[in-house]
Amino acid sequence: MRVNGLPQRSIWLNDDGWSVNVIDQTRLPHAFEIINLKTLEAACTAIRDMVVRGAPLIGITAAYGYSLALRQNASNQSLQQAYRALLATRPTAVNLRWALERMQNRIEQLPCHERAQAALKEAQVMADQDIKTNRRIGEHGLEIIRQHAVDKTDGEPVNILTHCNAGWLATVDWGTATAPIYLAHDEGIPLHIWVDETRPRNQGAHLTAWELGHHGIPHSLISDNTGGHLMQHDLVDLCLVGSDRTAANGDVCNKIGTYLKALSARDNGIPFYVCLPSSTIDWSITEGRNIPIEQRDDQEILEITGKHSDGSIKTVSIAPDNTVGINYAFDVTPARLITGLITEKGVSEASRSAMQIKFQGSPS
Amino acid sequence: MRVNGLPQRSIWLNDDGWSVNVIDQTRLPHAFEIINLKTLEAACTAIRDMVVRGAPLIGITAAYGYSLALRQNASNQSLQQAYRALLATRPTAVNLRWALERMQNRIEQLPCHERAQAALKEAQVMADQDIKTNRRIGEHGLEIIRQHAVDKTDGEPVNILTHCNAGWLATVDWGTATAPIYLAHDEGIPLHIWVDETRPRNQGAHLTAWELGHHGIPHSLISDNTGGHLMQHDLVDLCLVGSDRTAANGDVCNKIGTYLKALSARDNGIPFYVCLPSSTIDWSITEGRNIPIEQRDDQEILEITGKHSDGSIKTVSIAPDNTVGINYAFDVTPARLITGLITEKGVSEASRSAMQIKFQGSPS
Repeated sequence: MRVNGLPQRSIWLNDDGWSVNVIDQTRLPHAFEIINLKTLEAACTAIRDMVVRGAPLIGITAAYGYSLALRQNASNQSLQQAYRALLATRPTAVNLRWALERMQNRIEQLPCHERAQAALKEAQVMADQDIKTNRRIGEHGLEIIRQHAVDKTDGEPVNILTHCNAGWLATVDWGTATAPIYLAHDEGIPLHIWVDETRPRNQGAHLTAWELGHHGIPHSLISDNTGGHLMQHDLVDLCLVGSDRTAANGDVCNKIGTYLKALSARDNGIPFYVCLPSSTIDWSITEGRNIPIEQRDDQEILEITGKHSDGSIKTVSIAPDNTVGINYAFDVTPARLITGLITEKGVSEASRSAMQIKFQGSPS
Repeated sequence: MRVNGLPQRSIWLNDDGWSVNVIDQTRLPHAFEIINLKTLEAACTAIRDMVVRGAPLIGITAAYGYSLALRQNASNQSLQQAYRALLATRPTAVNLRWALERMQNRIEQLPCHERAQAALKEAQVMADQDIKTNRRIGEHGLEIIRQHAVDKTDGEPVNILTHCNAGWLATVDWGTATAPIYLAHDEGIPLHIWVDETRPRNQGAHLTAWELGHHGIPHSLISDNTGGHLMQHDLVDLCLVGSDRTAANGDVCNKIGTYLKALSARDNGIPFYVCLPSSTIDWSITEGRNIPIEQRDDQEILEITGKHSDGSIKTVSIAPDNTVGINYAFDVTPARLITGLITEKGVSEASRSAMQIKFQGSPS
């Protein structure tokens, strides 16, 4: 998608032909800075510190990180160590395991001297596939947006609510929840996006608002508390969110607060769709309650960082001294609240039977 | 309740015997400062700028403000002007109108020279009544907390989730949603309070956490997105919130986001109680959808104020430049989601028929 008018990806090979560049997403929206990753450790840090975040981008960064490790040392031991170190960076995103297993399977059969180059090539294939996958998600979601646009008159926009950032910054390009939005906008369908700020890390305010603004898509930033009221007053036509991990029964693990929006959508008869590459379906997890939920530092609750009027970036404490915060990063939205899963393979009902037919080609 | 170990009210008569002191709640939790109100204008500003906030405290401040206006000028014209100016400060809180009508009825019959003193006396009577009312709310709510405490073993706390600040800072003392909490704590029942930070103005982080901390009640601050996850995992025993205005059918208008928590409580079989003085029931409003919802400046969404590491109070911008925010201050929780209304007259079902019997003594 576009930044300052120019096409941009979230991760790309550096001109040196082996190291990897990413956007430092911890600096957005106030600064647009690139970080060059040269080592396994740098890749691990980038994932752990959320320089890169979003399930698909975490997977791709892990794949590149694996290739960087093998460039340093291509032994079996190094390969195992890279796998373990990268897997430990974030506990919830299933793409991390998926990407690492794919790399491992591809690489471990090869002689050591071929491994680094093969790993890099595989990471690039995965990045390109991510873009294709998201565009396909976008095409299937576009059909749904078109249906809502039919009911609008006089240039009235389709109002879409999204939570967190399942945008191109969370993938290599296009995003998942935003892919239908970008395609609909480029097709000329008037849109207005309600952007949940998404406390505590404010990915909506920091990333989604920034993405949409740079691409010229009308949007309004709202507190996470607001969506219910908007839905009660017919100000939301549909919800599009992403998924960090989807259980085999269609339960969706996504950013904390997603469940509350799904409840409200259900209570007001508003379609609630989850956009995801089918790689985020974890067939080994039978239901959402078995997905481990990451707890993060309570500093994310107690402090907030932003731009001061003098232009400097400052962190301020927003609670009384000595307050304790509890910081769950994700929640699980039960399949019963989900209208459909929009994937690269089409739209599936969020149920075990429908998903087995759609994604595994058999009902059992 | 207690601040730095000493009993404290949110509003009280100054030693001069006529002007009024309030805590500057815009400075909490980082500074504890007192503002002395001497004029109608000062009282209006204090309400409008949320130096004082919370439906009951707004009503009492308006009553004192009315008395300050009559001290300046006790004519019929001044009386009308004070009524209008105070009523215009905040559009949603029904206590404002209730308090002003009570003052008007008491005062307008009197000769001009008696009005200022009578108004001050009436404001003090109302402040004392507020304290008694809240303590009664607390006693009725305490019964409910006791019932939950029976099921706990080994000093396990009763886990209560609250949204925004319906604490003593929102009233003259005790609070509404917090009154049962303070009484239960003082009785020795182990408690743990989940404090929603309550974006965009963070009344939970700024005020409720501060109140509970000063009174020694265990609590954890959470993002507004978190309550659903906690309820799914049996980490919440009951919800206690306040109300800015309650419709005659039991629909409750309260801080934006309350509706989402009520949906989640219902989805997980958790009791959801609203604590309110019966004066916040607006019998002229037949259902919640007719309550006007205040929209506030989007600066509240786009900026946040807190304490910098150098001790100074700083405001930072948390969204990209030129972002537009939409800022609804309240939402309406339908009566069907409310387990009961805890009032000074006891606990009522949130329904037209039950409320008429409980509060108006007749079923029609």
